[in-house]
Amino acid sequence: MRGPYVAVIGAGRATGEQERVAEQVGALLAEAGAVVLSGGLGGVMRASCRGAHERGGLTVGLLPGGDRSEGNQFLTVALPTGMGELRNGLIARTADGLIAVGGGWGTLSEIGFAMRLGRPLVAVGSWAVTAPDGGPTYPVMGSPDEAVAWLLREIAHPTAH
Amino acid sequence: MRGPYVAVIGAGRATGEQERVAEQVGALLAEAGAVVLSGGLGGVMRASCRGAHERGGLTVGLLPGGDRSEGNQFLTVALPTGMGELRNGLIARTADGLIAVGGGWGTLSEIGFAMRLGRPLVAVGSWAVTAPDGGPTYPVMGSPDEAVAWLLREIAHPTAH
Amino acid sequence: MRGPYVAVIGAGRATGEQERVAEQVGALLAEAGAVVLSGGLGGVMRASCRGAHERGGLTVGLLPGGDRSEGNQFLTVALPTGMGELRNGLIARTADGLIAVGGGWGTLSEIGFAMRLGRPLVAVGSWAVTAPDGGPTYPVMGSPDEAVAWLLREIAHPTAH
Amino acid sequence: MRGPYVAVIGAGRATGEQERVAEQVGALLAEAGAVVLSGGLGGVMRASCRGAHERGGLTVGLLPGGDRSEGNQFLTVALPTGMGELRNGLIARTADGLIAVGGGWGTLSEIGFAMRLGRPLVAVGSWAVTAPDGGPTYPVMGSPDEAVAWLLREIAHPTAH
Repeated sequence: MRGPYVAVIGAGRATGEQERVAEQVGALLAEAGAVVLSGGLGGVMRASCRGAHERGGLTVGLLPGGDRSEGNQFLTVALPTGMGELRNGLIARTADGLIAVGGGWGTLSEIGFAMRLGRPLVAVGSWAVTAPDGGPTYPVMGSPDEAVAWLLREIAHPTAH
Repeated sequence: MRGPYVAVIGAGRATGEQERVAEQVGALLAEAGAVVLSGGLGGVMRASCRGAHERGGLTVGLLPGGDRSEGNQFLTVALPTGMGELRNGLIARTADGLIAVGGGWGTLSEIGFAMRLGRPLVAVGSWAVTAPDGGPTYPVMGSPDEAVAWLLREIAHPTAH
Repeated sequence: MRGPYVAVIGAGRATGEQERVAEQVGALLAEAGAVVLSGGLGGVMRASCRGAHERGGLTVGLLPGGDRSEGNQFLTVALPTGMGELRNGLIARTADGLIAVGGGWGTLSEIGFAMRLGRPLVAVGSWAVTAPDGGPTYPVMGSPDEAVAWLLREIAHPTAH
Repeated sequence: MRGPYVAVIGAGRATGEQERVAEQVGALLAEAGAVVLSGGLGGVMRASCRGAHERGGLTVGLLPGGDRSEGNQFLTVALPTGMGELRNGLIARTADGLIAVGGGWGTLSEIGFAMRLGRPLVAVGSWAVTAPDGGPTYPVMGSPDEAVAWLLREIAHPTAH
């Protein structure tokens, strides 16, 4: 049996530190047997795929455009959805859990979707948000190890909300 | 010529104050000749439709489910997309600008989408967000009048970003 | 109460005869109080909107691209979905019934979707199809009057299948 | 480099003969190094996945619902899109070519989409269609071997249309 599907979300243009975090996240997920989902492009997406690929992990990219060749070279499966940014919602929906690393507005849309759908999500150096009613949001963690450990535990044994 | 398409986004369960704001926003938009878009359900969505409807405005609801009758009674056009929360992306994409009133995680996904697409957006008592890089976000305003005035001006004469 | 939502489907490049049929279909639908849905572009889509518009009907276009100005001038509501041809499925889903006039491959996809969803559908000079198991398909009619009359009756009082 | 992505489309309830054809198609595709795409459910979809899986092929299922466990047991990657039948368009779009085996109305929608997008498509015992203008359609072939050989050739060296 294959492990859970975990999406690594973040921007196509990332800092060196964000890419290091994403690569480490991808590597840890692959070691745990997880399938690594992402938007399939560069930056954080490519770094997480590279990390997973180097550990023999399976990586799936849901591309916004219609051209498979836009996917990064570390994708096992590249799916050009042609849905533009609407594919962000598809990433959140097809993932069992998500890790956000840095990220732009597209990442924020994925965070919103994932939380709306009740998917466990953890952020490492990503968006900080405050709800209108001041309600609870997602955990913020400082290292890839903590984030991956928390997420895999939460997917396996969800905390009641 | 009909005016711009403006989405009013917010939660299906809203406070009385949020509904008053949304209704006033809808009324002001209708008076300005705008088409009022929303997710078509209750709470902030219904309140904005009611406000627009009472001023003779045109209202369009993009419903998440497959049943037209789930739309509120103030919709001129009710479209049951059956796309679930993915329809949030469709609302952002088909709007020329957006006003967020309160809101839950679904609203945050719409905010992310809209900003990603470069749509002008203003918040009244809604999500506060801080980007990973500390970059600029959307304006927060205290009253429906200010918010509608800012948004219509921004749609007509976009500020360079 | 507004009438049913009826999609008129067909190609963006149509023959003069197809456009005459589509315009007549649109006019008859508007007279019956129906909302006329379509892909919002030219050919059969524009002709059906023109027919409806001239009788004071309400027309809604679900455009494939991201630019509202691509919609024809007879649309009451123009929604640029940015979903490309995937919006064909949205047309079938949001309609209570459909009339196919001529049409290309995109029209065939809409026919497939609509029949899959159990929507009543009638064809006038459109695709003829034979199922692998030789099962029943949709009725083919020779005139706009017959087609509209059959469809509105079927929407109001569905025949058991 | 992985081979092309080929979708095998057909009904969830299929005849024994259709399942034999689909399994053989899946096996031939896997031997050729292709990724086998499908709607991920039973009948023709499961049979094609079984054929590919037994030859060590990679299989991807785009499920209509939101539950990964609805995917058949021969899927390498199962993606619950939650888009309902709209996922049919996604299958056509993400495939480099398609083989239709038998099939119901959903299959017809995929055929329409694929042809609209200019994807090569071949049918084995599937829908027969006649265009309004009597124009060319897709080839119909009698055996899995012929169909797979034609499709892989057409993907590699497209015939001008």
